[in-house]
Amino acid sequence: MTLTGRNIIGGRPEGEGTAFRAVAAATGREIEPTFHAATADDVDRACALADQAFDAYRETDPERRAAFLEAIAQAILDIGDSLIVRCMEESGLPRARLEGERGRTVGQLRMFAGVLREGSFLGVRIDPALPDRQPLPRPDLRLRNVAVGPVAVFGASNFPLAFSVAGGDTASALAAGCPVVAKAHPAHPGTSELVGAAVAKAAAQCGMPEGVFSLLFDDGIVVGQRLVSDSRIAAVGFTGSRTGGTALMKLAAERPVPIPVYAEMSSINPVVLLPDALASRGGAIGKAFVGALTLGSGQFCTNPGLVLAVEGAGLDAFLSGAAAALEGVAAQTMLTPGIHRTYCAGVAALEANEAVTLLARGRGGGETQGQAALFATSAAAFLADHRLEAEVFGAASLVVRCRDIGEIRAVLARLEGQLTAALHMEPGDHEAARALLPMLERRVGRILVNGFGTGVEVGHAMVHGGPYPATSDGRTTSVGSLAIQHFLRPVCYQDLPDTLLPRELQQANPLGIPRRIDGRHEA
Amino acid sequence: MTLTGRNIIGGRPEGEGTAFRAVAAATGREIEPTFHAATADDVDRACALADQAFDAYRETDPERRAAFLEAIAQAILDIGDSLIVRCMEESGLPRARLEGERGRTVGQLRMFAGVLREGSFLGVRIDPALPDRQPLPRPDLRLRNVAVGPVAVFGASNFPLAFSVAGGDTASALAAGCPVVAKAHPAHPGTSELVGAAVAKAAAQCGMPEGVFSLLFDDGIVVGQRLVSDSRIAAVGFTGSRTGGTALMKLAAERPVPIPVYAEMSSINPVVLLPDALASRGGAIGKAFVGALTLGSGQFCTNPGLVLAVEGAGLDAFLSGAAAALEGVAAQTMLTPGIHRTYCAGVAALEANEAVTLLARGRGGGETQGQAALFATSAAAFLADHRLEAEVFGAASLVVRCRDIGEIRAVLARLEGQLTAALHMEPGDHEAARALLPMLERRVGRILVNGFGTGVEVGHAMVHGGPYPATSDGRTTSVGSLAIQHFLRPVCYQDLPDTLLPRELQQANPLGIPRRIDGRHEA
Repeated sequence: MTLTGRNIIGGRPEGEGTAFRAVAAATGREIEPTFHAATADDVDRACALADQAFDAYRETDPERRAAFLEAIAQAILDIGDSLIVRCMEESGLPRARLEGERGRTVGQLRMFAGVLREGSFLGVRIDPALPDRQPLPRPDLRLRNVAVGPVAVFGASNFPLAFSVAGGDTASALAAGCPVVAKAHPAHPGTSELVGAAVAKAAAQCGMPEGVFSLLFDDGIVVGQRLVSDSRIAAVGFTGSRTGGTALMKLAAERPVPIPVYAEMSSINPVVLLPDALASRGGAIGKAFVGALTLGSGQFCTNPGLVLAVEGAGLDAFLSGAAAALEGVAAQTMLTPGIHRTYCAGVAALEANEAVTLLARGRGGGETQGQAALFATSAAAFLADHRLEAEVFGAASLVVRCRDIGEIRAVLARLEGQLTAALHMEPGDHEAARALLPMLERRVGRILVNGFGTGVEVGHAMVHGGPYPATSDGRTTSVGSLAIQHFLRPVCYQDLPDTLLPRELQQANPLGIPRRIDGRHEA
Repeated sequence: MTLTGRNIIGGRPEGEGTAFRAVAAATGREIEPTFHAATADDVDRACALADQAFDAYRETDPERRAAFLEAIAQAILDIGDSLIVRCMEESGLPRARLEGERGRTVGQLRMFAGVLREGSFLGVRIDPALPDRQPLPRPDLRLRNVAVGPVAVFGASNFPLAFSVAGGDTASALAAGCPVVAKAHPAHPGTSELVGAAVAKAAAQCGMPEGVFSLLFDDGIVVGQRLVSDSRIAAVGFTGSRTGGTALMKLAAERPVPIPVYAEMSSINPVVLLPDALASRGGAIGKAFVGALTLGSGQFCTNPGLVLAVEGAGLDAFLSGAAAALEGVAAQTMLTPGIHRTYCAGVAALEANEAVTLLARGRGGGETQGQAALFATSAAAFLADHRLEAEVFGAASLVVRCRDIGEIRAVLARLEGQLTAALHMEPGDHEAARALLPMLERRVGRILVNGFGTGVEVGHAMVHGGPYPATSDGRTTSVGSLAIQHFLRPVCYQDLPDTLLPRELQQANPLGIPRRIDGRHEA
């Protein structure tokens, strides 16, 4: 497929807005073709079409939406290798990673197809009428979840497939019954157009209303601001920086009708190394840690940016193992020149901090490549300097040497909300771990043992979320089947004749979905 | 029990803040004793105790919290008639209503005890490890909901028992595992102290941590502002005016760590009278409508403030029936002199509007009593004047005469978010109703047929919520068992040894709660 460089609005390529080009991550040079930023009219048209499509789309049978999601998955696969090639050029990410990410994207869409067929997402509850109840009869009450309305989805720079145009937010919104207006990330407009065209093709194939999906380009922030401010947009999905996420939160809160923003923003993902684990396998943990730290040049929201441990021989072994491994790690192309610059500035700030020691660096590289770095400081210094808590997006991490478990607790108590926390332990560490768990539960969305948070399984029990500022809304997850809840709200139907009820709520349960009757799951 | 007029902080009466007195609703005169508004120190101590109590309280077994809720219910009943007598004096509400409301309050607490024992609120999901999966093994993933943290609950003027100190928000927050800091509504401080002391007594009996509940007084807004701004408060429950609710939303959004506000604010609850229903029983519907309109002097968030119908003989019969009924309705004491003044001003504004006709008034009464009123206007006038959409809190309603169903649609399309919408219909109206349902689903939380929204059943399938500005967050309900979701967030546990898992997630399921394994409900 030849790239047109145009927005896709209601299935058609459109737009004559400001021109810009993609930049090859490895070289920093512009590449063809010219893309056109969406104009105010383009945003308006995409939102109007989404709004027009909403009532028809949200009432499609779950099976039809499942087939639509599967068709999107197939259409993405049908693009073939040109998707991977374009994405490699735009993102600088290697082939194996992007092939894996494509598999994840397709898997996510298919998982939501399964969620639709299973039906629990509808949250059906029926409290049957009790006409003879005293002192008052009980009416017939039936509850289902309905879609909230058209959703604005912002593509993420660091997941050009799995959290962009047809990524997790789009999949969960479309599954819920919400039309999507996607805003392509300017770091990968070509990848975005290819995927957007695949979604549009699947929509046409499946007979979906034309406004069910649109894709808008922009190399700035105006299109995103217009989208979030548009009265027809009912919710926002965003993965990116804290600056970007909090700006959207503010915009959404100040609308005449405020709307929810699900922004996944920043996290340093503390790793706690407990004494017996360090004593028995400190060096091996150090090596594994460097693997997690440098994966994808550290450009994961779940990257382990903070390590806490009590000083001693075990920690020394960890640090030796980590340093040895790190020094062998090649520099990798970062996603954009801007991300690379910000990474270098973050590393330079740590280097310039007198309370921080440089422990090791990865191998050097070209001018768009991130050189991994490992630093250390003391708990006292960490507690005295809030700047040390800031995320450095990339393969940099800070080890906090603690004198005792009390200092580990003090550091954890200071931390902002996080996506993940990892505990490395042996059975002898269980009591220490048990004492830390309540603190971690209050601060993170996922607690893991003897691993690192970088792998985010797409499943039913995953939480990729966490208290602010890890996300804008710690009551949710953006990865996994539970993410569909972002885009649903409950409606109650009281005493409606069966023939007027939506099929999900009809007495005979024609869709065969799980229901709660009088609060109990039906057998 | 003798009233002390003091805040209850961690179970103890405290406070020497600004003095104020309750006002008898019927006379407008101050009554004994003197109450003391919470000082900044009082707010700080209540929040500090709530925060200290949180970890212990949230990990109490669901059975223990259920017993605590039941003990609160019993302690409220044990206050005996003095609660009803004080509440009648403060609120002006009649005995039968308050005895019913006490039953509802106690029933709500017991319902949440049932929710705790049933266990679905924990949302347990388990995706078991797949060590042999290719290309990567799957870790063991387990998800449960945890309590969000200490909750600030604002008492409502119009439900001095069911939505105040131990009302729906408090019951659902305590059920979820959140300590509560309640702010008493200044319209019923004595009622609040009696109920607050009952909660404190139950907490002591059940061995709950002392900070699990506090009660703060104020006759202004400063204590509420301090509470919502306190960093230890994690969520807010509020029922009241749109001015109050939106002010709290703004305050919560501007905190360094924003928190969710669940505010139930305002609604005019459109009632659509369809042609066959009007033709066959217009007069009877008119009479029933007046019953709903004037119940409790119309001081319900679900009061039917707007009636839509096509002109004709059926509507004339409805209006005659309604007018005849209304003219016999005695004026009733309103909750506060302020609410009475605002009601009179709202009625006067309708009377002064040239496009509005007064159809009927209820009987006149004393200077604190609300005189019911029914007005009419045309669809064209309604569409031309946004002021006609404003809630008049009390027993006033506006009938919009429409020329055809198209005008009914046009009026519905203009409406803001609402708590409820009612359709009155006969089988011949089903097709017309079917065409309206999608519009209503987008605008309201509950759709009901051949009734009025004033009765809000406390059950599992109830939604008392709706799009902004009916509430601050249309994804939720504040009445019914689903309200516990306000105060929960998911946490995922990855590869934790069984012994370190919370009991809800242990493999053997020692609490016997419903679980989803690989996304499917366990049989």
